[in-house]
Amino acid sequence: MNKTPITVAYGDGIGPEIMQATLDILTAGGAQLDIETIEIGEKVYLSGNSAGIAPEAWESLRRTKVFLKAPITTPQGGGFKSLNVTTRKVLGLYANVRPCVAYAPFVSTKHPKMDVVIVRENEEDLYAGIEHQQTPEVVQCLKLISRPGTEKIVRYAFEYARAYGRKKVTCFTKDNIMKQTDGLFHKVFDEVAKEYPDIENEHWIVDIGAAKLADTPEAFDVIVMPNLYGDILSDVAAQIAGSVGLAGSSNIGQEVAMFEAIHGSAPRRAGQNLANPSGLLLGSIMMLVHIGQSEVAERVHNAWLKTLEDGIHTYDIYDEAVSTEKVGTKEFAQA
Amino acid sequence: MNKTPITVAYGDGIGPEIMQATLDILTAGGAQLDIETIEIGEKVYLSGNSAGIAPEAWESLRRTKVFLKAPITTPQGGGFKSLNVTTRKVLGLYANVRPCVAYAPFVSTKHPKMDVVIVRENEEDLYAGIEHQQTPEVVQCLKLISRPGTEKIVRYAFEYARAYGRKKVTCFTKDNIMKQTDGLFHKVFDEVAKEYPDIENEHWIVDIGAAKLADTPEAFDVIVMPNLYGDILSDVAAQIAGSVGLAGSSNIGQEVAMFEAIHGSAPRRAGQNLANPSGLLLGSIMMLVHIGQSEVAERVHNAWLKTLEDGIHTYDIYDEAVSTEKVGTKEFAQA
Ligand SMILES: CC(C)[C@H](C(=O)O)[C@@H](O)C(=O)O
Ligand SMILES: CC(C)[C@H](C(=O)O)[C@@H](O)C(=O)O
Repeated sequence: MNKTPITVAYGDGIGPEIMQATLDILTAGGAQLDIETIEIGEKVYLSGNSAGIAPEAWESLRRTKVFLKAPITTPQGGGFKSLNVTTRKVLGLYANVRPCVAYAPFVSTKHPKMDVVIVRENEEDLYAGIEHQQTPEVVQCLKLISRPGTEKIVRYAFEYARAYGRKKVTCFTKDNIMKQTDGLFHKVFDEVAKEYPDIENEHWIVDIGAAKLADTPEAFDVIVMPNLYGDILSDVAAQIAGSVGLAGSSNIGQEVAMFEAIHGSAPRRAGQNLANPSGLLLGSIMMLVHIGQSEVAERVHNAWLKTLEDGIHTYDIYDEAVSTEKVGTKEFAQA
Repeated sequence: MNKTPITVAYGDGIGPEIMQATLDILTAGGAQLDIETIEIGEKVYLSGNSAGIAPEAWESLRRTKVFLKAPITTPQGGGFKSLNVTTRKVLGLYANVRPCVAYAPFVSTKHPKMDVVIVRENEEDLYAGIEHQQTPEVVQCLKLISRPGTEKIVRYAFEYARAYGRKKVTCFTKDNIMKQTDGLFHKVFDEVAKEYPDIENEHWIVDIGAAKLADTPEAFDVIVMPNLYGDILSDVAAQIAGSVGLAGSSNIGQEVAMFEAIHGSAPRRAGQNLANPSGLLLGSIMMLVHIGQSEVAERVHNAWLKTLEDGIHTYDIYDEAVSTEKVGTKEFAQA
């Protein structure tokens, strides 16, 4: 098998540890990767580049088109832009896919049957970054929804459902209040849904939909929603499935795709071999499927599940129900 | 005791039933109320008044300054404005207070120790209702945060905490992305918090804060947040505490205050004596405290708790753990 070129960023905080652990596991699992490493995050910001990423790094990303990214730290203050948002925007990563799955009984959860995929719009909404101060006492931020942007994300959600044999796509908006913006999102959802008669569709107002999701997540399958709701509710869903530490995500564009954990860089836990690489590992498994190494993906996923089943956990997931407690790197050498 | 004048709206759907039940209980509990009834909602909308409320009704509200409101229905389509939003705006009801309390073991919940009060800003944010279509394919909505508006709501949250002996006020924003708007909210929170050294304060980014709330609500006490987050997360919190059907809320202004259930008018269940009046009843108990009839409030609240403890529930809350199932009106004649 030819090696697939990918771009890797080790990130900040716990980033380097969990990236090393993840790459070790992928190699052990037989992944064929040709790795280009780039510098992003804290060091780049502090060197005066407010985007947190160097021009050469963009070149690598445009060349390999596949990006495995560890969490990074944006320094406080100083008007640094969020690199996550910059990357999504510059590379046109319009779909943020976040599977939130319970691994009961191996990871404790109140929702053992949960298996929800949140498909979050990733470029528009309040994330367009248009803010201004109107008077000294009044500030505004623009929420933007476009028809092409919405069509792209909704169609992605239905295509995803079809590809992965899922039965239903739900849409969340607040169109009883935001009749034009969320109204457009809902309307496009209804239009696109008609092209997929094999897949059930429904719409919930986001407040009561979120309540239902937090209480009875088994009621949902794939959920598509505007950016900000997706940001909040994917954290909710991942957490009640087990832990935000156990969720990976893919950020899909027309050309480039980026894979990451959904959690942050946890600087206080860095360098202590405490971190759980599972989120990034699950992101990297999505990457293997994306680059056509599905067999390796399955092998690595099974090894990971086996590790959970054996009760081997990092301290964040460790629980009475579990037999051994292990640190990040060591644990995953065993898989 | 003198009777306190209040304005009452019976609303739509299940509104009339639960209002009648609520008023019967308040009367049985010894509440001294001089009731003015107004027409709002569906009928008023359909008579051509797109605000859903008649001029005489505003007069009554300005006179009594206390409004007990049943859920209403906004007809689909036709560009009708949300009466909830109109009322909040016209009457300057800046604080929306939503206690989310578990009544375990009498109402089943996965979070038996939960006791959270969400203080939701009620006039600004994306609810300012400023939307427009920029091109045929692009629509925008303005999110607005002001310093005076934020000071008012944050101060209200701390005053509330002090008055009700609560220990901590938490603030949720997304100021890592919306640095100016949510940034202002967070900044004002930090400033106002300094005036209340007796009360603990903390800030969470709303995504991970929401995840924590959905997973470990016992970690929170009072939470103050901008309008839209408060809309979504108060539904989440109420639902995981037991049911959105069991939450009441107050909408506080400088002069007028409005009390209601947080749920909607459920038109499909109307007229069947199925509805649970608890949300509106809890709203009316907040009203009794507000108008200085705290003794009656306590009596009614205890009677309601006793009813729950006796296992008497409407169908929506009924559960194995419960002995009798009863319909709305009858159940509450017993209290
Ligand atoms: C770090 C932040 C910019 C980011 C977001 O808001 O999208 C994060 O919360 C996420 O969900 O990936
Ligand atoms: C009905 C709707 C306008 C309202 C809101 O969004 O505020 C409701 O959801 C609420 O929470 O009171």
